[in-house]
Amino acid sequence: MQDLPTIAWHDGKVRILDQTLLPHELVMLEISDYLGVIQAIKSLAVRGAPAIGAAAAFAVVLSVWHESDSDRAGFIEKANKAITEIKAARPTAKNLFWAVERMRETLAKNLNRPLHEIRQELLRTAQWLLQDDLQRCQAIGKFGAALLPDRCNILTHCNAGALATAGHGTALGVIRSAVAQGKRIHVFIDETRPLLQGSRLTTFELQEENIPATLICDNMAAALMRRGMVQLVLVGADRIAANGDTANKIGTYGLAVLAKHHNIPFYVAAPWTTIDMELNSGQLIPIEERDADEVRRMQGRLIAPEDIPVWNPAFDVTPNNLIDLLITDRGVVRPPFAGTLAQMMKS
Amino acid sequence: MQDLPTIAWHDGKVRILDQTLLPHELVMLEISDYLGVIQAIKSLAVRGAPAIGAAAAFAVVLSVWHESDSDRAGFIEKANKAITEIKAARPTAKNLFWAVERMRETLAKNLNRPLHEIRQELLRTAQWLLQDDLQRCQAIGKFGAALLPDRCNILTHCNAGALATAGHGTALGVIRSAVAQGKRIHVFIDETRPLLQGSRLTTFELQEENIPATLICDNMAAALMRRGMVQLVLVGADRIAANGDTANKIGTYGLAVLAKHHNIPFYVAAPWTTIDMELNSGQLIPIEERDADEVRRMQGRLIAPEDIPVWNPAFDVTPNNLIDLLITDRGVVRPPFAGTLAQMMKS
Repeated sequence: MQDLPTIAWHDGKVRILDQTLLPHELVMLEISDYLGVIQAIKSLAVRGAPAIGAAAAFAVVLSVWHESDSDRAGFIEKANKAITEIKAARPTAKNLFWAVERMRETLAKNLNRPLHEIRQELLRTAQWLLQDDLQRCQAIGKFGAALLPDRCNILTHCNAGALATAGHGTALGVIRSAVAQGKRIHVFIDETRPLLQGSRLTTFELQEENIPATLICDNMAAALMRRGMVQLVLVGADRIAANGDTANKIGTYGLAVLAKHHNIPFYVAAPWTTIDMELNSGQLIPIEERDADEVRRMQGRLIAPEDIPVWNPAFDVTPNNLIDLLITDRGVVRPPFAGTLAQMMKS
Repeated sequence: MQDLPTIAWHDGKVRILDQTLLPHELVMLEISDYLGVIQAIKSLAVRGAPAIGAAAAFAVVLSVWHESDSDRAGFIEKANKAITEIKAARPTAKNLFWAVERMRETLAKNLNRPLHEIRQELLRTAQWLLQDDLQRCQAIGKFGAALLPDRCNILTHCNAGALATAGHGTALGVIRSAVAQGKRIHVFIDETRPLLQGSRLTTFELQEENIPATLICDNMAAALMRRGMVQLVLVGADRIAANGDTANKIGTYGLAVLAKHHNIPFYVAAPWTTIDMELNSGQLIPIEERDADEVRRMQGRLIAPEDIPVWNPAFDVTPNNLIDLLITDRGVVRPPFAGTLAQMMKS
């Protein structure tokens, strides 16, 4: 995946690997307009909380990249307008807001400098955010790998890999780091309906790295656990409340209930930028509901009656009492999470 | 669905509604060879434990329908060979073995009669099995409907409807009967990967009857329960052991664990022909594992890497302690099931 970055800046454009076409087509989108990046976020061409954050930062850069150097008011207005619109692209992932906030700060701090310098500072911050996320993932990998036993079967959901981040990944970053240490790990991958991030993206990443993996449908996880075929559930996160409640891809909460029933540890891996200390509980996390046709159609093809009503929440919230550990770039957080997270946030 | 029977005998052929093409195409297969019926069972053109039983019975009829009336030894040998092969079509559903056993008994009882009379007796038994299953489903509906509250949201999995039986259905039969009594019921339908019996078949049946329904992906059931959006889980069964452990479509066991966690009642509806008193525990029920391409492909189209290993069990087993009620044509069975089932079997 090092050769195929999810997101990169190149010559005044954002390059985004179109994840809707993986694993069968490798298409790099070249986007020169911030509205194009918003569209890529909404359509899930780029997805995964940290990757969305990085894409959003470059969208802010794009919003002023071609603005005139002579119209300061217009330049600033354009940047602020873009920041507002980009923040509204998707509601659940914390990293989007965090990254855009870093861009807003950069703009505010450099407000009186020449416009071409502001542009460069914005680009520098976006590049830093990308690099920062990669380093966080590597730290998550280091802390997490130490927790994994040798010879274990891990169940993961959706894609919390290099494709969901600036590289290395969160849940998959832990697995990558453990494999690099010589640990023998086999991964069961939930296909993750409706958009199949498990069967399309996580399979792709693990095959690239020659990490043994087996694909299952989401509804097979319980039978897998009952047969003793999995020793750990490891997932990413889109937003973590101050008490440890975790929003992640729809289906995660069910896995957590099943893991508890079968006495299987349930770990969440996420960068600190996913934590939202302003929300005391996961019940306050806004959950995006997406188009019914994501469920009624498969890659455009109708697989259900075209007028059947659908409920299609993109995420669910796993309460903290079902989570055994949070693996972050600042270290491993053990329950009770509320106190420890507040303490670690200060340090 | 009365106008569109799942299985019927017509002029020396078995007519089977091809369920792999629903809901978009209504194609009636006309099969004149018992091997064709076995193929229809294996490919899931006909599926659902009771429907498989009925199809198997007609397959036995077909195996001798065109046999010569002058070669008694050949006739009997052909019938016995077919019986053996038909029983091996799929391993999990009890009704297949039950129905074929009724056909074997008919053959044995009439062994000394003229061959054309044996043929007619076999056809009569197969027709009776079809009628018998419909009556059992109607009885299940009557017993089950009395249990459903007015204004409730029911979650169902796979298709335990008219399409899975000789008509009316088991789990959907209960819902049909309750709606006929004027109860206001809304059904959430798990799409049921990999073969989408929920999104293709259960949606189709409920829309035909104007019963309000909403489609979800399998991994959304837990979030649905947590939000208090469902008051009952109601499913069918492929085999029920003497202790009440129940094999049903993969994903059922997970729903039962989730229902228990959320204090939601979990009911199984099935005809008495699904009960296997010879197995003391569900652990003894053979679980069919099906082709990896059912998961890797969607209606033929690749949705995952073509060489990714897959685990694809068609069924799972729900232990009796997660089941609140069995709704059968002999009445409602309450826990502990082992004693009650043995007692009801005798009566």
